[in-house]
Amino acid sequence: MNELTHVDSDGRARMIDVGGKEVTQRVATAGGTLVTTAEVVDLLLRDALKKADALATARIAGIAGAKRTSDLIPLCHPLPLDSVSIDLVPAGDSVTITATASTSGRTGVEMEALTAVTIAGLTLHDMVKAVDPAATLTDVRLLEKTGGKRGHWTREN
Amino acid sequence: MNELTHVDSDGRARMIDVGGKEVTQRVATAGGTLVTTAEVVDLLLRDALKKADALATARIAGIAGAKRTSDLIPLCHPLPLDSVSIDLVPAGDSVTITATASTSGRTGVEMEALTAVTIAGLTLHDMVKAVDPAATLTDVRLLEKTGGKRGHWTREN
Amino acid sequence: MNELTHVDSDGRARMIDVGGKEVTQRVATAGGTLVTTAEVVDLLLRDALKKADALATARIAGIAGAKRTSDLIPLCHPLPLDSVSIDLVPAGDSVTITATASTSGRTGVEMEALTAVTIAGLTLHDMVKAVDPAATLTDVRLLEKTGGKRGHWTREN
Amino acid sequence: MNELTHVDSDGRARMIDVGGKEVTQRVATAGGTLVTTAEVVDLLLRDALKKADALATARIAGIAGAKRTSDLIPLCHPLPLDSVSIDLVPAGDSVTITATASTSGRTGVEMEALTAVTIAGLTLHDMVKAVDPAATLTDVRLLEKTGGKRGHWTREN
Amino acid sequence: MNELTHVDSDGRARMIDVGGKEVTQRVATAGGTLVTTAEVVDLLLRDALKKADALATARIAGIAGAKRTSDLIPLCHPLPLDSVSIDLVPAGDSVTITATASTSGRTGVEMEALTAVTIAGLTLHDMVKAVDPAATLTDVRLLEKTGGKRGHWTREN
Amino acid sequence: MNELTHVDSDGRARMIDVGGKEVTQRVATAGGTLVTTAEVVDLLLRDALKKADALATARIAGIAGAKRTSDLIPLCHPLPLDSVSIDLVPAGDSVTITATASTSGRTGVEMEALTAVTIAGLTLHDMVKAVDPAATLTDVRLLEKTGGKRGHWTREN
Repeated sequence: MNELTHVDSDGRARMIDVGGKEVTQRVATAGGTLVTTAEVVDLLLRDALKKADALATARIAGIAGAKRTSDLIPLCHPLPLDSVSIDLVPAGDSVTITATASTSGRTGVEMEALTAVTIAGLTLHDMVKAVDPAATLTDVRLLEKTGGKRGHWTREN
Repeated sequence: MNELTHVDSDGRARMIDVGGKEVTQRVATAGGTLVTTAEVVDLLLRDALKKADALATARIAGIAGAKRTSDLIPLCHPLPLDSVSIDLVPAGDSVTITATASTSGRTGVEMEALTAVTIAGLTLHDMVKAVDPAATLTDVRLLEKTGGKRGHWTREN
Repeated sequence: MNELTHVDSDGRARMIDVGGKEVTQRVATAGGTLVTTAEVVDLLLRDALKKADALATARIAGIAGAKRTSDLIPLCHPLPLDSVSIDLVPAGDSVTITATASTSGRTGVEMEALTAVTIAGLTLHDMVKAVDPAATLTDVRLLEKTGGKRGHWTREN
Repeated sequence: MNELTHVDSDGRARMIDVGGKEVTQRVATAGGTLVTTAEVVDLLLRDALKKADALATARIAGIAGAKRTSDLIPLCHPLPLDSVSIDLVPAGDSVTITATASTSGRTGVEMEALTAVTIAGLTLHDMVKAVDPAATLTDVRLLEKTGGKRGHWTREN
Repeated sequence: MNELTHVDSDGRARMIDVGGKEVTQRVATAGGTLVTTAEVVDLLLRDALKKADALATARIAGIAGAKRTSDLIPLCHPLPLDSVSIDLVPAGDSVTITATASTSGRTGVEMEALTAVTIAGLTLHDMVKAVDPAATLTDVRLLEKTGGKRGHWTREN
Repeated sequence: MNELTHVDSDGRARMIDVGGKEVTQRVATAGGTLVTTAEVVDLLLRDALKKADALATARIAGIAGAKRTSDLIPLCHPLPLDSVSIDLVPAGDSVTITATASTSGRTGVEMEALTAVTIAGLTLHDMVKAVDPAATLTDVRLLEKTGGKRGHWTREN
């Protein structure tokens, strides 16, 4: 493929037509990392220990964010999500974020999984920014996807 | 500071009270990078050459995203944004994203600048994913902020 | 059933997977009551007599609210609603609210019907609060549902 | 007062003009109860014991809902919320919900507090409905408010 | 003035900075017309006669739409609206729509008044399209505005 | 047809039931015109020449607006859009706007195409209003539609 799919031959943005694509089960998993300090990760872990809401808030925000993907990304198609889950692992000086989304639709859910990771990451950022304004959200990327014409794709590294 | 500000002493999430904080002019700048391939950056640059919409779409999405920050980040305060601007620089194998937001409000606009960078980055991701599903949004971080009780902060590295 | 369905075995919130469920016609009806004073109900009835908008505003808000259910309830699936209707009956010192929603989908519309009742009730509350700040929205509950694996359910009392 | 404030003399809905009202600090507290079964409350408490997300999800949803009040209630003014907090107390066969919202604005935050209670209640409903479809959200009402021309108001019973 | 204000000197879209502008009372009135057939206007009038919701629905949608202006128009600033009102006059073969919005803010409410007219017009269109698919929304324009640096402006024709 | 479809026999607004309608491919095209001055059109064309964002902003806003149609028009059904495209032609003293939307759904996409035209038009209005506050959005109308029970419809003039 040697063209951007979201602009027409004159370079005009458009929402491409997926009407002719098949409705199949599609799943995507994306990951990312919020790099902060060991002290902040410790605060998050202690918070989790006392049954507190910090990680839950990021999880809920990520799930809600996934449902708004087509409202945030202008050329993204609206999709009826079948499921979204988010996994947050605080360890060392960072929190690893993984999100999986699935749908029965005409186009993939990569953007939904990536949006879930991103909004969860921004929500963590918001919660730690008073203690660590330098926290960095990094490595937001697709890990794997299945379904659709091109089938299974797994990230190589 | 040794506590997470967004949870109370029992660890319950809440939107902290900014009612006693002063209304001041506040500005924040954030940055990030979408790492893709030199071939994709070339497509974006050629698209730009033919006056096309790819970069404009990401800019518009980032600005619109900044205005929805408090709707996306559960514990973030709604803020009347005075300005938002986004700069996208495609070069080598990546697109550098910088966003600046400002307000006259009781709390800072860090999250608005970070959200602008992130949504612009996800929109670029959406546009290049058919050619490069492995594209990665990375280094989303605060670069500088002014205003508020703590005054000026600049990222050290 | 002896587990909460919306948290996994570790207690983490997630949007459960409905991908394997059948698409069937599903209908739900919910009810609720705004208890205010006979004087306020009289104002609403006189308003209705002069063809005014008070009850229409609550109806429209309830219908629009039903369409935003999955945006308001974090773990709720987005559903393509086939219909929503709302019935408001002012009598005595209260307004009885009934809402029915239907879809052709993989999961039920209980939350849509309950959200419609609730937002209609809050809108009535907003309209009468200057005259009756003590108004109470009460008895918001599911009355009946059909469709899906478990079939027909009717409230017993 | 013997008129509905949200309709004009011809009964037409409008967003009334608050431009002449003073900007003051305004606080409102509202309450409500989700009545379910002792078994379900036990599930929620055990979930809380294993540090799970059920109550956190309802808290986050209530806070996010408060920020969307003017988007949900047609004639409600947009307000820059200074704080929102939600308290959930599961006991016996029900969960008691209390929400407090504050602003520095030209009109009160009653509807924001009531919306927070309601959306938190609906989110609990969503989480328990598979085990208790008969759960009822009840007694959603204003408890107290301060600020504005009419000053302090406390519910009598 | 010989430049577009919403693009910078390189032609890049941005939300211009209004931080240095004064907070003043600003009012704008916009108008528009839905042209349909005399038969449809008659249906609307008869509907109004039986106290029905057609015109109320358009009024409510227009008011709600005005509150979402900055969410719909990418470079528009969020504004705390003080009031919105909409007037609908069905007569002959058309419905005349007039909307007035006001704020105490740093920038004008022209777009809010225009959005109110437009969304009210589209809502009428939606309601009459089964009987008159050829209905046309026309003459959506600013009629008058006050406040801000440039003061009072009235449409000449 | 001699009745408004969106109100019941008592004149109450409701979202009519489309559950019994067939899922078919449906397409609609709508048009409209922003009338401004030759000088402003010249600014837009020069902006386009220097690869700037003015027209792209309107296109993106129109596409994003189409996806929010059911959120803006109270009685409109949510639809999974398969595609949206917008064409803007600046010439003489005006910009001609054409939008096409398609879906595989139970009801037509007329409102989505009309909303796309309208939001694109309002966005242009926003961008030119500092130079031409008198700009007028006019002739917003359906041009053609296909699919559904009534089949093909083309505007006669």
